[in-house]
Parts: sequence; C-alpha cells; structure tokens
Amino acid sequence: MQTNMMAEMTWVEYLRRLQTEQQTVLLPVGALEQHGYHLPMGTDHFLPTAICKGVAERIPAIVAPPIAYGYKSQPRMGGGNHFPGTTSLDGGTLTLVVRDIIKELGRHGGKKLAVMNGHCENLFFAIEGIDLALRDLRFEGITDLKIVRFDYWDFTTPATLDKCFPDGFPGFALEHAAVLETSMGLHVFPDLVRIDSLVDDPAAVFPPYDVHPARTEWVPPSGVLSPAKGASAEKGKMLFDEYVDRISEALRKEFVETDK
Amino acid sequence: MQTNMMAEMTWVEYLRRLQTEQQTVLLPVGALEQHGYHLPMGTDHFLPTAICKGVAERIPAIVAPPIAYGYKSQPRMGGGNHFPGTTSLDGGTLTLVVRDIIKELGRHGGKKLAVMNGHCENLFFAIEGIDLALRDLRFEGITDLKIVRFDYWDFTTPATLDKCFPDGFPGFALEHAAVLETSMGLHVFPDLVRIDSLVDDPAAVFPPYDVHPARTEWVPPSGVLSPAKGASAEKGKMLFDEYVDRISEALRKEFVETDK
Amino acid sequence: MQTNMMAEMTWVEYLRRLQTEQQTVLLPVGALEQHGYHLPMGTDHFLPTAICKGVAERIPAIVAPPIAYGYKSQPRMGGGNHFPGTTSLDGGTLTLVVRDIIKELGRHGGKKLAVMNGHCENLFFAIEGIDLALRDLRFEGITDLKIVRFDYWDFTTPATLDKCFPDGFPGFALEHAAVLETSMGLHVFPDLVRIDSLVDDPAAVFPPYDVHPARTEWVPPSGVLSPAKGASAEKGKMLFDEYVDRISEALRKEFVETDK
Amino acid sequence: MQTNMMAEMTWVEYLRRLQTEQQTVLLPVGALEQHGYHLPMGTDHFLPTAICKGVAERIPAIVAPPIAYGYKSQPRMGGGNHFPGTTSLDGGTLTLVVRDIIKELGRHGGKKLAVMNGHCENLFFAIEGIDLALRDLRFEGITDLKIVRFDYWDFTTPATLDKCFPDGFPGFALEHAAVLETSMGLHVFPDLVRIDSLVDDPAAVFPPYDVHPARTEWVPPSGVLSPAKGASAEKGKMLFDEYVDRISEALRKEFVETDK
Amino acid sequence: MQTNMMAEMTWVEYLRRLQTEQQTVLLPVGALEQHGYHLPMGTDHFLPTAICKGVAERIPAIVAPPIAYGYKSQPRMGGGNHFPGTTSLDGGTLTLVVRDIIKELGRHGGKKLAVMNGHCENLFFAIEGIDLALRDLRFEGITDLKIVRFDYWDFTTPATLDKCFPDGFPGFALEHAAVLETSMGLHVFPDLVRIDSLVDDPAAVFPPYDVHPARTEWVPPSGVLSPAKGASAEKGKMLFDEYVDRISEALRKEFVETDK
Amino acid sequence: MQTNMMAEMTWVEYLRRLQTEQQTVLLPVGALEQHGYHLPMGTDHFLPTAICKGVAERIPAIVAPPIAYGYKSQPRMGGGNHFPGTTSLDGGTLTLVVRDIIKELGRHGGKKLAVMNGHCENLFFAIEGIDLALRDLRFEGITDLKIVRFDYWDFTTPATLDKCFPDGFPGFALEHAAVLETSMGLHVFPDLVRIDSLVDDPAAVFPPYDVHPARTEWVPPSGVLSPAKGASAEKGKMLFDEYVDRISEALRKEFVETDK
Repeated sequence: MQTNMMAEMTWVEYLRRLQTEQQTVLLPVGALEQHGYHLPMGTDHFLPTAICKGVAERIPAIVAPPIAYGYKSQPRMGGGNHFPGTTSLDGGTLTLVVRDIIKELGRHGGKKLAVMNGHCENLFFAIEGIDLALRDLRFEGITDLKIVRFDYWDFTTPATLDKCFPDGFPGFALEHAAVLETSMGLHVFPDLVRIDSLVDDPAAVFPPYDVHPARTEWVPPSGVLSPAKGASAEKGKMLFDEYVDRISEALRKEFVETDK
Repeated sequence: MQTNMMAEMTWVEYLRRLQTEQQTVLLPVGALEQHGYHLPMGTDHFLPTAICKGVAERIPAIVAPPIAYGYKSQPRMGGGNHFPGTTSLDGGTLTLVVRDIIKELGRHGGKKLAVMNGHCENLFFAIEGIDLALRDLRFEGITDLKIVRFDYWDFTTPATLDKCFPDGFPGFALEHAAVLETSMGLHVFPDLVRIDSLVDDPAAVFPPYDVHPARTEWVPPSGVLSPAKGASAEKGKMLFDEYVDRISEALRKEFVETDK
Repeated sequence: MQTNMMAEMTWVEYLRRLQTEQQTVLLPVGALEQHGYHLPMGTDHFLPTAICKGVAERIPAIVAPPIAYGYKSQPRMGGGNHFPGTTSLDGGTLTLVVRDIIKELGRHGGKKLAVMNGHCENLFFAIEGIDLALRDLRFEGITDLKIVRFDYWDFTTPATLDKCFPDGFPGFALEHAAVLETSMGLHVFPDLVRIDSLVDDPAAVFPPYDVHPARTEWVPPSGVLSPAKGASAEKGKMLFDEYVDRISEALRKEFVETDK
Repeated sequence: MQTNMMAEMTWVEYLRRLQTEQQTVLLPVGALEQHGYHLPMGTDHFLPTAICKGVAERIPAIVAPPIAYGYKSQPRMGGGNHFPGTTSLDGGTLTLVVRDIIKELGRHGGKKLAVMNGHCENLFFAIEGIDLALRDLRFEGITDLKIVRFDYWDFTTPATLDKCFPDGFPGFALEHAAVLETSMGLHVFPDLVRIDSLVDDPAAVFPPYDVHPARTEWVPPSGVLSPAKGASAEKGKMLFDEYVDRISEALRKEFVETDK
Repeated sequence: MQTNMMAEMTWVEYLRRLQTEQQTVLLPVGALEQHGYHLPMGTDHFLPTAICKGVAERIPAIVAPPIAYGYKSQPRMGGGNHFPGTTSLDGGTLTLVVRDIIKELGRHGGKKLAVMNGHCENLFFAIEGIDLALRDLRFEGITDLKIVRFDYWDFTTPATLDKCFPDGFPGFALEHAAVLETSMGLHVFPDLVRIDSLVDDPAAVFPPYDVHPARTEWVPPSGVLSPAKGASAEKGKMLFDEYVDRISEALRKEFVETDK
Repeated sequence: MQTNMMAEMTWVEYLRRLQTEQQTVLLPVGALEQHGYHLPMGTDHFLPTAICKGVAERIPAIVAPPIAYGYKSQPRMGGGNHFPGTTSLDGGTLTLVVRDIIKELGRHGGKKLAVMNGHCENLFFAIEGIDLALRDLRFEGITDLKIVRFDYWDFTTPATLDKCFPDGFPGFALEHAAVLETSMGLHVFPDLVRIDSLVDDPAAVFPPYDVHPARTEWVPPSGVLSPAKGASAEKGKMLFDEYVDRISEALRKEFVETDK
C-alpha cells in the first residue's frame, strides 16, 4: 500500500522513510473556522494538507496528521472568534501541541521538518512551539533537526496574483474566504464549495486597529472579508500548482544542505 | 452537499444543526501510535472517527475533527512510547486541547457532546479536559452542556467477545493491535491493513507493575501485545455494527432527557 | 531511634541509607476521599502507607511522606467528586507534585524508587509526573534512577480473591469502600472503621460511559459502590500480608538488577 | 471514634462538623527539610500539625492532612536546598496545591479556614495559592470563605522569648533547627530528637544578600544555623502552650465575627 | 506636579483621572532588542512610550509603565534572537504580563484602554493577553472595559511614506532599525542615535520562509535589515506628529462611543 | 554617548562591556503600587533603579530596564492589593519574567548579575525565577553565571537607622511610604513627592496574621503604614549614599572571586 500520509503508514514503513531514506516530514497547521456561507470550516487545514500531499509527490516526504484546530480567529484576518463554528485553541495550547509533536519527530530521528501554516492567526504560536521544541531537544542532546516554517501563501508570485486579480490585487489582508481560498477550494475540494451561497458583499473596511471585545458589526454577516466573485477552479489549480512547485523547490534546496 | 463532518460544513449549516435541530456533537479522541507491522499508526483515531460517522448516520449528529495526537503510549497498554512513529503529547497538552475545544462548543450553544476515546492512555487527560472546560463554562454562565464520555470498547458485549474469541477472551489489557483492532481495521480501512506483515508472536507477559524508564525488552519487537491471528473483516463488521448500535442508543437515551 | 519513615530520619541517617546502603525509597500516593459511612476519608493514603511500612520491614527501604491529596474522584471509581469531604487536586497539580518529589530524590542520589498508588484516579497523572521527572533529570545528566510504579491491588492473586469472595469476585471496578478496602481497614486501622455504620446497599450499576456533570443519582447515597458486608480483619490481614510479600519480592527482583 | 483529624473522619462526620457545627478547618503547611544532625526532616510539618491538633482541642476544629512538602530551602533561612534529604516543590507547584485544597474546602461549604505555616520559605507561595483559590471561588459564586493565615512563630510573645533566651534573643532569622525548634521537638516528638547528635557550632554569619548558585560554604555542615544548646522540653512546652492559646484565641475572635 | 505618567502619579491622582474624569489608559508594549550599530536597544519601547506621551497631551490620558521586554526577535522582522543584547520573553510570559496588567486596570474601574505595540513580534502574544484578561474580567462580572490595540506604524499614511521614501517605500517588512525607526529616533531621542555608526549595508534578502535554528548568515552583521541612510529628524518629526494626531483622533472616536 | 542603561546602549556597546570588560549587570525589580497621598506609585521601581545607577557609577556595571510591575501588595507590607492604582502580577508571572530575562543574560555570556529588589512582596517569586533560570541554563550547558540577590534595605546600617529615627527605629515591617522611602524620594525624585499631602496618621496596628479577603479596615485610608513625618532629603541622601557604597562594595567583593 503506497501512501505518503504518516497516519496510514506502519511504524516500520515510517522509520525506513525517515531514517534510511532521510525523507522530510511535512506538518500542516490549520484551523476550524468559519469561511463564509460557501466554504467549509475545515478550509484552513484542508488546503495546507492538500499542498503537503502535492509536495510529497514531488520530493520524498511524509505528511503528518494536520493540526485541525488553530488559534482564535481575529476580525481583521478571519472575521473574528465570535462566529459559531469557529473552534479555536488558546495560544498557549497551540504552542504546546506544536512543541510536543516536533519533540517526538526529533526523538524519532527526524532531521528535516517543514511546518506549513494555513491559518494566519497561528503564526507566532507555531513559531514559539518550534522554539520550545528545539530548546527541549537541545537539552536531550539533539541538535540536528532543521525546521523550515512558512505560510503557504507567501509562495504566491506576483505574476500569479496578476492573473488571479485582473483588476489589481487588493492585498492578502482581506483574503479570507475570498478569491484565493475559494479558487483553491474549487480545485482541491470542489464538492465542498457551496458556490450558490457565495454572496457578493463589498469588502470589509477596517480601521488600523482592533477593538476588544470585537466590534462584530465591522465584519460582514457572512464572515467573508472581500468578494470571492472572481474565483475559479482554474485559478485554484494555478495557485495550487505554483505552491507545490515552489515549496518543493525550496525544501529541496534547504534540505540538500542538511544532507551535506 | 450532505455531510456529517463538522469540518466539511459551512458555519451556517453547523449552526442550524447545532442550535435549531439540537444535534449532538461527537468528538473522537485518538492517537498516532505504532500498531505493529500490519496496522497503520492512525488506527486509534481512524477507528473512533469511523464509529462516530456511523453513529451520526443513526442519530442526528455532527462529527468534529478528531484529535489525532494522544497521550504517551504505555508499555502495558500500547507498547510504550519508545517506538519511532509514536507521536504523543504531554498529558497537560492533551488536557488543554480537550478543554479548549469543549469550551468553544459550549460557546456555540452546544448542549449535547459525546467524547469518544480510541486510545486507552488518553482516559484521564480527557476527563480532566472535560472538567476544566465545564468549570470555565460555568464561569461564563453556561451550565447546560451535557457531556457523555467513553472508551468505545466498553460497549462490547460478552456475546460478541465470545464470537471474536472462540477460545476465550484474554481481556482488554493486551488488545493492542491484536484481534479486535485488526478486525475493525479489516472492516473500516482494509486497504491500510498489511495483513501479510501480521506476525504470530506470543502474547506479551507483563508483571503487575511498570518500570520507568521503560523495560523495552518486555514488549515484542513488532509492538503487538497479543496475537492478531484470529482477526477477520467479519468480526470487524460485527464489532463495528455493535458499537454504532449501542452507542447510538446510549446517546439517544442520555440526550433525550436533556431535551426535556 | 529506629524508623523507616523518611520524615522521622535526620538527613544524615537518610543519606547513609540512600547512598551507602543503596536502599529503595517508597512513595505512597493516595487521596482524601469519601469512603462511605464506615471508612475514614484518608483510606487511600493510609493503606498504601501501611503497605509501604510493611515492605520497608522486609527489604531495606525508606518511606517518603505520602501524597495525601489525589486526583478528582470519578463516579464509576470512587463515587464522584461531588461528595463533601473529598478533597482533590487538579490533574496538572498532582503531576507536578509527583514530578518535583522525584526530581529531588534523583538529586539526592537515589537510584531505586517505588511509587505505590492507592487511589485509582491518580494513575495517569502519576505516570506523567514520573515521565516529566525523568526528563528533567536527564537534562541534569542523571540517568540512573529506576522507578517501579504500581497500583497495590494489582498484586492480589486469584487465590486470595477466591477466599475474599466465596461467591465470586465481582471485579475491581466497584471495589470502592467495599470488601477489600474495608477488610484492609479492619486490619490496618481498626479503630477508624465505623463498622456499625456499614450500610448494605446493593452494588451500584453504571452504564459503560460517564456523564459530565456527574449523574450523582447513579451513586448510592453512602458513596459505597458495592456491599462491604463480607469484610473481615482476617481477610484484611491476608490481603495485606500478600501485598507486602509480593511487592517486596518484586522490588527485590527489579532492583537487584539495578545493583548489578 | 473521636478524632479531629479530617483524614480519620468519615465524610458524614466531617460534613456535620463543617456545615452544621460551623467548625473551623486548620491546614498545616510544612516541609521535608534537613534540620541538623538532631531533628527529623519532618520537623516543619510535625510542629504545625501538632499545634493544629492542640488548637482543635480548644476550639471546635478539623485538622486537614498537612502539606508535607514545601518550597525550596534557602541558605539564610533553612540552610539551603543542596542538602540531601531536603525534598522541595517548585514555587508554582506549592501554590497550586494550596489553591486546589482551598477550592475544595470552599466547595464543601467551609466558611472558616486557618492556614498555619511551619516553613518560612512557603510564605508567599501559600499566599498566592490562597489568592488564586479565592479568585476561582468568586467565579463559582462562593464569597463567604474567610481565611486566616500565619506563620506560627509570629505568635511568640517577648516574655516567652526572654525565658527561652536568657542571654537575649538573637532573632528569628537564624532559628533553623536551633533553640526554638529543638525545644518544641523535645516537647512534641521527644523520641525523634537525637539529642546526642546536637552539635555546638557557632551561629552562621551571612551577608545581607543571597548568592545563586548557593555559597554552601556559608552554611554549617550540620545544617543548623545557630546553636541549639539551650533547648529543653520545658521551653518547648511553654512555646507550644503559648501557640495553642494565642492562636485559638485569635481564631475564635476572627471567626466569631464571621458567624455574626 | 503635572504628569501623565502613571508611575509618577499618586494613587489618588490616578483614581480621580481614571474614575472621575474617565481618562483613557495607554499601555506601551515594546522590547529590548538589537537595533543595529546606531540605535539603542530600547528603541521599541522608547518610541511607543514617546508616542503615548504625545497622545496623552492631546486627549486626557494616563501612560502606564511600558512593558520593556518583548517576544523573541525573528530574523525576518528584527534580525533574530541570536544577537547578544536582545533580551526576550517566552511567548507565554508576555501573554501573562499583558493579561495581569489589564486585569488590574479593570479592577481599578478603567473603561478605556489602548495597547500600543512597538515590536512586531509581540502582536499575537499581546492579543492573547488581552483575550485572557477580558475572559477573567468577565468572570469577575466586569464587562465594560473596552480595549483598542494597534501597532503604531499602521497609522502611517501613504502620503507620509511618499515623503519618507522619495524612491518608493520598500514595505514595512524590512523596516527594522531602518529609515522609519532611525528618523523617529533622531526626533525623539537624538542623543541616543549613534549616527556615525550607521552602516550602509544593502537590504537583507529573505526567502518566503523561516529556518529554525535561525540561518544567521541571512541577517546583515549589523542587525539592520535595510539601509537607514535617508533617515532624518525632520522625517521623524513628521512621522511622530502624524502618529500622535491620528492615534489621538482614533481613540477619541472609539472611546466617545463608550462614554455614551 | 555615555550611559550605563542597557536600553540606551547599542548591542555592540553592551557586548563589549559584558564580554570584553566583564561588567556586572544590575536588574532592578520593583512594583507599581500605592505609596500614600504623597509618593508616586512608581516608588518601588524608581528607588532601586536609582540605586543601581549609583552603583554603576562606582563599579563598571550595566543597568537593565527595571521590572516595573511586581507581586500583589500585602496589607501588612504595602497596604494591600485592593487600592486602585496598585497594579500587580500573579506570582507565577513575575517568576517567569525574572526567569526569562536571566536566561537571556546567560545566553549573552553574562557571568555576573545582581538582582536588586525594591518591593518586599517580590522576594520569593524573584528567588524562584532565579532558580528556574539557573536550571534551564544548566540544561544549556551554561554554569558560570553568578547571581547576587538582595532587598536594598538590608544594606542599612544600625548607625544610619539611629540617625533616621532619633526616637528609635520601629522596624522595617511598617516602613511602607514612611520615613525611609519618603526620605529617599525627597533625595532621588523630589519633584514627585507631594510633601503637602503627607498625612500624619498613627502607625497601622496589625495582628500577627493575615486575613483573606483582606481586612481593609486595618489599613489607614492613605495607604501609609507608619508616619512619614520625620522624612527629609538629608536622610534620603544619607541612606542612598550608604546603599550605593555598601552594595558596590559587596558586589565588588563577590564578583572579584568570580574573576579569579
């Protein structure tokens, strides 16, 4: 049985790939968060998991089970944590989950790990988890685990953005459940996109600050921060392929040096 | 699009089911743990997730994304945490994950939650997560979330055990990657069972105590604690159907009272 | 002054026994928990402490002060944490107490530790405390502390159970404040057993799941989970002597290997 | 069976005394710490427990099991934590133990609690535990638990100190395993005082600062900070009786107001 | 004595301003972090503190003592945490500091708080601190504290950026110890800017990912991420005045609604 | 630019002083706490910071940014934490702040650290922070950081107390916002002392115990625990100079040994 999913492997298959073949482990970190009336709540873990699978077909890699629950949604990034359905962890909890998983990968003898984030709000808690894991691994005498960490959308090229947004890219800030994610969804999990429920609200307008407790009236009722109208499966494929290409290339480059 | 998986729903679909239809939420709690040469490492979260899906087809229910990483494997229960591949959380981390998820379900207005455990070692850390969540929810003024918690195997009937073990049931203690789990796997994820790799080691023999650090020589090299030889898809189906039946019935009974 | 209790020793006496004579340290872990109308609330730390004292008269050993407060009582194990008098720690607190004490014993130069549990609910939190202590000790460069951990009742032999339960042993599950603990109490602390207050309620009947918040109506008002009527000091002595014998033997065996 | 020790009571006896008779609960907080060549390591929990028992014979009170492990010994207070035998908790651990126990007493319906400290280093961690417990109890809606907290030696009168130290009292700072504690020991647990091992070292001399890691050469090898030579059982009885008298009186006074 | 600094006020002055005059409290959150060869390590707390003082002269406000230690520097944002001098807190520590301070302001009766961040890496840990504080305050029954949170640079207008960067603004990403901060420093603390030590390294070039442990060779030896050459006190004054103006206006607007 | 304040240095200046010149780092730990009607709330961090500056002019030393928020005020030490304005951290938070800062200083290569406390209640939480930092540094292989810790007032000589209190020194216990601190304030920050608001309440009288929740009626309304009437700038200068002298001498003595 051929699989790149760690959970589907037996431990001896995993061990051979990790230690003998020195394969990279890919860890998708996502969220369970409202994504408007048209995208499923798992979008932020479905997308990085799919990209990880794509990468694992290019470079020899193992995909660890995704972290499906992420940090609290922020109004200006994902609509805010007041939506029913959005199911978030405290920051410290997410940090510990990331820390513990990485420490185990280090114990297994892993040398190459990529942490792929699919939910903006996770950023710093994942970084802290990585830092604490490397600290504890140092204490165990393990110093040769190298970790590459990124938000997958940072691999988007300007050329692709131009194609996705013929009228100009409004910036990543409001791209929640909007053109990019919807296009990706139409390519990766078309059956889960309720395209008929796509509303055409105008983009949200935020001041340059947060208010806590959240000013929920600033967020469109759907939870979509800017119109998803231009989304298409073609754009999704283009984005997806670019992510897989460029991320595979980056990891190959980074981890070749490790091999030397 | 019809689905019972929370991550596949939009937030409004979830909200309608949770609040309007007063559906139950099912939370599978599992592990990523060695399961011998023949079962995938995800067995402990695959099985409760599958049972949850089965239950959700019987009673109106929503299946939350499984907790795929669990507490550290213990030699006498799951072979021990020294195996490569076994990827575990600290006890406190697991408790916080369970706590945070449940608090969010309470915030959403959930009244009926079932926590289905598929990895023995999770037991008390999940209980503590439930207790801490209910405590914090009380502080928020939410006192009407009712939680049913169980290890799915506790729903096995003696009659079924008799059929699975014609020579007598040796007890749950050594049933790690053995007849029950292997049979269930052959029914639920047959493609992931490497039946040819099934070894026929004798059952492990443990004294009535643990030793820390683990006496790894007490555990068979495969990680299987007792022979899986009698496993079959038929037994798996019988077990699976019984779990779905009896758990559905129990939840229906418990939560009907809540509705009153 | 001759004593095996660590708290009664001066530090130089302790040091001599620990380092020069390489004695074992025994740590009783218990609880303060309702035990029906007839047993004292300290039962779960009185009994393991008494057994530890008994063991220390057989093998050269030092008995550390018992941990007198344990994890929250569960309805199906100890009646539940809603009883007044039951005084419990959060799981994380108990883990830290166990961790800190063991780290100190490691710092003292201890090589042989037995953690004897007397309260079912403590199980995993004590295991986690042991794991975290050994982790920190590794970081300090201390790797030669060997820990044996057990629930004392796991040393009961079938032969003894037969004698205690002439009509058949109903299983450990409901043995809270019942025949075994009451018999032990009549042997170990007879003055503290209010034998006249022993009620003859039928055994509690539980479904194969918990409900949180606890369904307190499932628990007999006394807090006793199954009838203690057959209890006697003779049975208590038989059990006690067997525990002391078999535990002493197990520790001698385990720790002799350490000495080599 | 008549006892004031909570662990020796059944839960119904405790409940009656706590709720019906509105008795005070006394919680001794101590340590397991070197006390020179002549005093047992449990001195800091033996003494406050004995005083609590004495108080409970004067005012109707219940003595909870002592906290037998305390905060790390400091060189200028208790000789330092480098001594073998001294077995200490992290500060955060002690705080959580105190917090959890007090929260439970509040849950039981307790209104009157006295926390008696017998180990100088515990002071602030116990205060923090009290503060956190009262915070959580407020969140539960419980606001009528009143707690009196003290170090028992703060009840010593100048007149008694004059009698104990005919040549002048050198101050509490160096009174570790010295005249006061040794006298108390000769009165309370005479069999555990190795009076022949009492050394006559001069008092330790410390600068007005700590050094970390500890300058262990500043501490006498015995661990005694000033000579215990003038100690006697008579002085011990005088001190003990005064503590019992004055503490009983203080609690009666404080808690009478509560009753009103 | 006239001051807007909370630490310089007596408690009664503070109380009058907070409760009677309903003034806003401003909390600067910064860092102690390398800022190249020419800027002081306190830059990230000096600047927001100065802006807060400026704001407090426009709207009636109280400036709380700045949080002078922040989260770990990241290579792509602040050069990385490997530089000597950079003195950072764990993420969880920073969160707790923010949480505790805000809870106290809520206890004092504060209704209006602005948290001004001056160190990019603090972002999410401060958000989490705010969230946890509001949670605990809710538990205390306090629900009327409104918090505005921002990174001060988000108030920069395009017009001002055009003036600061006549050749085009390269983006905030590499603005560490570069034109904006250096200009601000020349205006706010000119004596602390070692203008002669300003190096003219080319801007750092980063791939779209992190590597952990940090690839320190990616960061210029000075720690400056892009050239500060165009910096001037005039630009600094222009930026500073704009921040004070626009932030004062935003707070006035947000908190007027609170007053209603 | 000549400065001894770490936050005002560039990282290379700091590095040269720390590593090449082996200078001592001084860390002031204070509080934000009511100090009566006449002293500013920052008194407890202003004073140790000023003394640190004075010491840094005598011995080559670097003054780290003060910790401006301390542990909760206690009625018998600082009037209690119920006063508006008093802004305190949980004990665990303060411990983590101290721990994290010290770990960073150890990472920088610091060998000599003095932690100067200016707020009585911080004592044990700072000690615990030091202990945890040294523990983690040991795990990193760093064992040569030596830390001197003290409360600055412990350097007061009897001769100086005689001059400050011609009628006899009543003891440090009630010296909150009283003669010593007021005199120091008149010398160090005369513009911030509202000398006209000095009230002449009698000294507070406390029993030898705390009550929780605090008996606020025991504390004078001003928050001053004993009369400050005899305070003067001259006394303040005398105290300040003595602290600088004696602390400089102590550090020189302690750290010379380190250099050898």
